[in-house]
Amino acid sequence: MTSAIILSIGDELVLGQTVDTNSAWLSRELATIGVRIAAHATVPDDQPSIERAIRSATVNCDVLIISGGLGPTEDDLTRQALAGVLGMPLETDDASLKTLTAFFVNLKREMAGSNRIQAMRPRGTTMIENTCGTAPGIAAMFGDCRIFVVPGVPKEMKAMFSRDILPALREAGGGAAIVSTTLHTFGLGESNIAEMLGDVMQRGRNPSVGTTVAGGVVSLRVNSYFESPEKAVAEMERTTATCREKLGHLIYGQDEETLPSIVAGLLKASGKKVATAESCTGGLLAKYLTDVAGSSEYFTHGWVTYSNEAKTQQLGVPEDMLKGHGAVSSAVVRAMAKGAMRLAQADVAMSISGVAGPDGGTPEKPVGMVCIGIAFKDPHNASSVGTHGRTFRFSGDREFVRDRSAKMALAILRFHLTGIVMPF
Amino acid sequence: MTSAIILSIGDELVLGQTVDTNSAWLSRELATIGVRIAAHATVPDDQPSIERAIRSATVNCDVLIISGGLGPTEDDLTRQALAGVLGMPLETDDASLKTLTAFFVNLKREMAGSNRIQAMRPRGTTMIENTCGTAPGIAAMFGDCRIFVVPGVPKEMKAMFSRDILPALREAGGGAAIVSTTLHTFGLGESNIAEMLGDVMQRGRNPSVGTTVAGGVVSLRVNSYFESPEKAVAEMERTTATCREKLGHLIYGQDEETLPSIVAGLLKASGKKVATAESCTGGLLAKYLTDVAGSSEYFTHGWVTYSNEAKTQQLGVPEDMLKGHGAVSSAVVRAMAKGAMRLAQADVAMSISGVAGPDGGTPEKPVGMVCIGIAFKDPHNASSVGTHGRTFRFSGDREFVRDRSAKMALAILRFHLTGIVMPF
Repeated sequence: MTSAIILSIGDELVLGQTVDTNSAWLSRELATIGVRIAAHATVPDDQPSIERAIRSATVNCDVLIISGGLGPTEDDLTRQALAGVLGMPLETDDASLKTLTAFFVNLKREMAGSNRIQAMRPRGTTMIENTCGTAPGIAAMFGDCRIFVVPGVPKEMKAMFSRDILPALREAGGGAAIVSTTLHTFGLGESNIAEMLGDVMQRGRNPSVGTTVAGGVVSLRVNSYFESPEKAVAEMERTTATCREKLGHLIYGQDEETLPSIVAGLLKASGKKVATAESCTGGLLAKYLTDVAGSSEYFTHGWVTYSNEAKTQQLGVPEDMLKGHGAVSSAVVRAMAKGAMRLAQADVAMSISGVAGPDGGTPEKPVGMVCIGIAFKDPHNASSVGTHGRTFRFSGDREFVRDRSAKMALAILRFHLTGIVMPF
Repeated sequence: MTSAIILSIGDELVLGQTVDTNSAWLSRELATIGVRIAAHATVPDDQPSIERAIRSATVNCDVLIISGGLGPTEDDLTRQALAGVLGMPLETDDASLKTLTAFFVNLKREMAGSNRIQAMRPRGTTMIENTCGTAPGIAAMFGDCRIFVVPGVPKEMKAMFSRDILPALREAGGGAAIVSTTLHTFGLGESNIAEMLGDVMQRGRNPSVGTTVAGGVVSLRVNSYFESPEKAVAEMERTTATCREKLGHLIYGQDEETLPSIVAGLLKASGKKVATAESCTGGLLAKYLTDVAGSSEYFTHGWVTYSNEAKTQQLGVPEDMLKGHGAVSSAVVRAMAKGAMRLAQADVAMSISGVAGPDGGTPEKPVGMVCIGIAFKDPHNASSVGTHGRTFRFSGDREFVRDRSAKMALAILRFHLTGIVMPF
């Protein structure tokens, strides 16, 4: 399997003033033709550092992609560093000089003397044409390692990579392919999911399955590497099916799908309308429900009843109930949901009341305790309303508790709309 | 000058499925204490690769920060690799195991067997406590290089770095000091702000002033590098004062301050209560207003009136007005704010109605057009209500339009509460 290292050059990158997105893009592109990425590296605009990085990379991979440092200024030193590593002088590439000169004539601008350096390359290397800018790239060999140097400007880099470098590497790669997909779960922790998946996650397995976590969503990444794209896709699908068997309805979506987009799809498909009644989440659930274009099809009303008075006045939660059970209680969230559903003339309503923290916790109702309620029309008897309330305990700061509460309400709504019993 | 290398571990990073933002953040933080970044490197979840990267980095820098690969699953191999490089066995850290066990007890969830590995560290190293998650970090020495390992989850990594690692490195850094501060503005674009700042932004100036933009907030980063901390702080304050002179009330906050936290402070100080009435932002403004702990002091009621019917039924917006002016109009947002203020018995109310897109635009009311309303009690006559409405045009996708609208409402509320005329 061909392996590659991606080397990015630039002070602005090592200083953290620019986030490097080129390396991620190049990696995804290389993966599609079955090139394994051994590493990313980033060094400043400093010739000894660049030379050291090139030397060290070329012994550890078959293909080295270098981006950045081809500009016309004094701190662009990649071509000099490459010449240093190759032990070759820089010489002018006549065709490139002609193109470069024409580029400036075309712009009706005078070419600065410093631009001439951009038509130079180490002896024995070849130029890669740049159709979007002034800096051509350079293709070279060092030992057994193929080196491609491209500008750091994303647009120029992408154009040159797609047009010249990717096809050259694909030919050399002999048709092998990596394809990937991602499955998303919400509700259980990473280690629980890993245990349920068992040996599917074993290292060295192909397709491989790995987990990542972001915002409470545990995602499974499936990478499938085979000698042909067809085989890679078929095997990926087989592994995906195995993951779905093991996790069942814990998986709510795939790739670009999100909890809000899935719930929006279910609401649109069912023709049902949802209303919200929120306390501690302060509108976040309604915000999630309206993240999706066209949300007016299923969402018309939401309430943020932060105080007890608001819960009573706006949603009709009985004062006695608030006194007896407290605002963070199953009884109150059920009453909130019922009130919201009735007022909005919705088919279902979700409600949330909890202790988001950092203050306001008590021994009985500690910070992180959140009640989530649902009210829904009985499908067999339109005049009858069903309600449920569940109590959760989220461990984290205010932002964490609020976010997980709103997502959990979406998860509960998803299970309600699909008629599936919640697996947690 | 101390030099550092930042090493990120993760298949998802080398495959390009996740863009590495940790390295840029760490670089910026290290720069503030005068640490020079020699390189960034990223390797996959593969023990020999991680070991090779650690060995190679430690001979080229004084400080190595490693992030990622501390999770509980089989593909988390950073601690094993570190043990390999150090030539030390992994052993359980009793204090960490206790903390970890308590974490799960507190969550009322069973600890998966695989989590136990997270309480282990190579013999002779020390743990770095993680207060936001299950994976503690590890501090080690290899030759003359200090090594700090932190989780890849940005929130956990940042908390641990700021609390433990940065102070330790600052102490080791000797006399010279870089101090930094950041001033935040909202409402004008980066180039307008740069023009107003003029030569304060000149390259090579010390203290330096640079702008960054995130979520519509244009921030000025002031870095002051001098031979002593006292001098660095004094010069930073002088430059900060110059920036404040040039930008005046466009600057709403400094460092950790946010629009919600500033508005919350003004509301608390004034004893005023605010209510919200939202259409296109779907609860986001209420969410921002309740981001801050103790928000129940000033926020009791919010409405998400997404449909016209909801605006009429819940807030008393006249049907004729909706027909005549349309839901996205100054008249309607003023009526929404007035209704919300009255129902919530608040002192001020903010309302938003707009075309978030991507669909629903017309030539007169294109996507991105948003009306923001305010209603407020006349301070001299409690029975009299003042209202204003302003129309904005935000250029971006649905998420962008919704976010900027909610932030603009906060900005308007800030100017209302301070009695300052809006400078834009």
